[in-house]
Amino acid sequence: MTGVGGDHHGAERIDRVRTAIRREGLDGIICQLPSNVLMLSGYWPVVGTAFAVATADGQVAVLAPEDERDLADAGWAAAVETYSPLSMNDLAGPAEHVRKPLSDLLERLRLTGGTVGFEDTTLFEEATYAASFVYGQMLLPTLQAAASGRLVPMAAVMTSLRSRLTRYEVSKVGDACKVAGIAFRNASRAICPGLREPEVADAFQSRMVVDGLASEDVRRAGSFTFCMSGPNAALAGGAYARTRNRKLEREDLVLVHCNSYLDGYWTDITRTYYLGRPDERTRSVYDAILEARSAALEVIAPGARASEVDRAARDVLDKHGLGRYFTHGIGHNVGFSAISPDFPPRLSPVSPDVLTEGMTFNVEPAAYIEGWGGVRHCDVVTVRPNGPEVLTPFEASIEDLVLGP
Amino acid sequence: MTGVGGDHHGAERIDRVRTAIRREGLDGIICQLPSNVLMLSGYWPVVGTAFAVATADGQVAVLAPEDERDLADAGWAAAVETYSPLSMNDLAGPAEHVRKPLSDLLERLRLTGGTVGFEDTTLFEEATYAASFVYGQMLLPTLQAAASGRLVPMAAVMTSLRSRLTRYEVSKVGDACKVAGIAFRNASRAICPGLREPEVADAFQSRMVVDGLASEDVRRAGSFTFCMSGPNAALAGGAYARTRNRKLEREDLVLVHCNSYLDGYWTDITRTYYLGRPDERTRSVYDAILEARSAALEVIAPGARASEVDRAARDVLDKHGLGRYFTHGIGHNVGFSAISPDFPPRLSPVSPDVLTEGMTFNVEPAAYIEGWGGVRHCDVVTVRPNGPEVLTPFEASIEDLVLGP
Repeated sequence: MTGVGGDHHGAERIDRVRTAIRREGLDGIICQLPSNVLMLSGYWPVVGTAFAVATADGQVAVLAPEDERDLADAGWAAAVETYSPLSMNDLAGPAEHVRKPLSDLLERLRLTGGTVGFEDTTLFEEATYAASFVYGQMLLPTLQAAASGRLVPMAAVMTSLRSRLTRYEVSKVGDACKVAGIAFRNASRAICPGLREPEVADAFQSRMVVDGLASEDVRRAGSFTFCMSGPNAALAGGAYARTRNRKLEREDLVLVHCNSYLDGYWTDITRTYYLGRPDERTRSVYDAILEARSAALEVIAPGARASEVDRAARDVLDKHGLGRYFTHGIGHNVGFSAISPDFPPRLSPVSPDVLTEGMTFNVEPAAYIEGWGGVRHCDVVTVRPNGPEVLTPFEASIEDLVLGP
Repeated sequence: MTGVGGDHHGAERIDRVRTAIRREGLDGIICQLPSNVLMLSGYWPVVGTAFAVATADGQVAVLAPEDERDLADAGWAAAVETYSPLSMNDLAGPAEHVRKPLSDLLERLRLTGGTVGFEDTTLFEEATYAASFVYGQMLLPTLQAAASGRLVPMAAVMTSLRSRLTRYEVSKVGDACKVAGIAFRNASRAICPGLREPEVADAFQSRMVVDGLASEDVRRAGSFTFCMSGPNAALAGGAYARTRNRKLEREDLVLVHCNSYLDGYWTDITRTYYLGRPDERTRSVYDAILEARSAALEVIAPGARASEVDRAARDVLDKHGLGRYFTHGIGHNVGFSAISPDFPPRLSPVSPDVLTEGMTFNVEPAAYIEGWGGVRHCDVVTVRPNGPEVLTPFEASIEDLVLGP
């Protein structure tokens, strides 16, 4: 689906990683968090027991659990080694079993005794499976047991690397957005009074997973999809979405939100539908949200301040008397991330970030009005040389979103 | 659904926690991992920014993000405090924002200056949302900034507490199993040649989520459901399941696996269906698997060795010439856990664990035969005074599993 040649998927990323490692004076970096392993190697670990290593001379190697070899091989790491995280014959866990193979790998990469960056910061990490392996406080001791050199924090390296996507990575996020778009366009037509929120959410989610896995080059597809209707739509401004069992009624707002993925490249999409003929107030809220969206998009370009994007949308909502109902920033980094403001660009009033080409994020003007409901329109956007490309251009007008009486 | 009185859900757990804290000579313990917060307080955090604290005198308190207050209030913590993990007005994250409120909470609980256990081990942590907050190497510094006392490892406390469930917790896992059972019984009838694996998995999953959220007292329901058919069923012996896009054919084995949850209480269930009239070999594999299941159940009782349960099943499979295709232990702890062997009982050949009442785990005899396919039958079982109670008693005979021509 992506139209990028097989051998070159990782070339741009490998180059950036090498540059960042050298800039910090490191010999290499080592990552365990699945989102970072994906960024380094193009392989998205399933149960979180893999490591990826990159060196100052541009080598990328992966140490994967043997059951994930095929997934690791499909990435661009020049070397893929495997190990057995668990065994029927002893009670040791991944942290014990990984030491020797990890030590061997670091030696082969000539990182033994070197200065190696490791993951030293908190972050929101995306779900890869029903459960995933957490090193917690044991990451550093595990790495220390495998590497004889100096392990150093590398927050600056990761901030730089996670802030903007390569062309290949944007194309993968775009693929995930396309699959989600088909689901939104199709499942939205089935929304009607009498359905319950879980049934609505499920209709969208089913389509995303089934269509996602039908794509030739996709190995894993999934979606966390939620429906919040009527007064529940006002709750969508919280830190998470939640589907309740409410039955849809005529004149309802129906907010559908998803974070979906194909192979670890995530989306963050919301559409708010209306079941009926909107009254004046409802229409004015929709108009304000869509006007705020346009105003934000207008500002997005290389060199623009992230805070200005937020300001543009907020000014529109203020003008319509809705500013106090817009309780979060206009957007955050999306791609390897789904829900988090961990890495630039952070599109909020106090952000110091400046947009550059390849930065990919959501734009989510919203108004959450307790007792009335909420409208949010959340797109995924990437910064192109001349301005924004909206990766989710579907259902962007009030005509698309009002489902009629 | 559970039939346990509202005020007493946590009484048994609170008592066990207090006893375990005292036994280790601690003043209290503090947990951040959602599965542990749930165990301590009955509240399953969504985005992983909450803490739960328990004291040697039996107090339980929660510090939750303000958007999760209603969820935290529904647990049994006597004190629920909230904070804002993220703000539009600064760029700090949860680890910075939590310090002051956490410090205040520890002071109110008179733990300032005390000896407090913290989460010092690796483990497999279940997915609570599209993404969740990972402290990683920053957990201990965050706690140190909030607590002026001594922070000590508490692996022994957690091993003891996570090994067996209370009556209330078993009833919650049972509820999740019942919802899954309805999905298996209904969705299995729709399996037929021509469907693709994602469509089969989706039919099971949809039903689990929609029915789960329809239950009066359920706040969150979800499922990670997979279908592996024909030769793909042989791959189900790996460390994770994966649905591919294969189209079902007549004479296929169709292995359906799920880890589903209601409010943080998980299941681990597999059924293997057959699309046609089984030939002699297929029937003999089914017979062996179900005989191994019965042999394992026969052994389960308080005082039995976990390794004997494994042995009983393995002996049956050996007798049928299938021993070498049974590549994992017969089971592992399930409930707060979904996929992991982190806590007793670990039902494998080398396990030293002894079963006690309330231990809850899966029993999963299987044969994975490369090129042919695989059959696994995975139940959730709890140890009662007189033997096992199978929480997933549905579709347990070859008549149920052979879907016929």
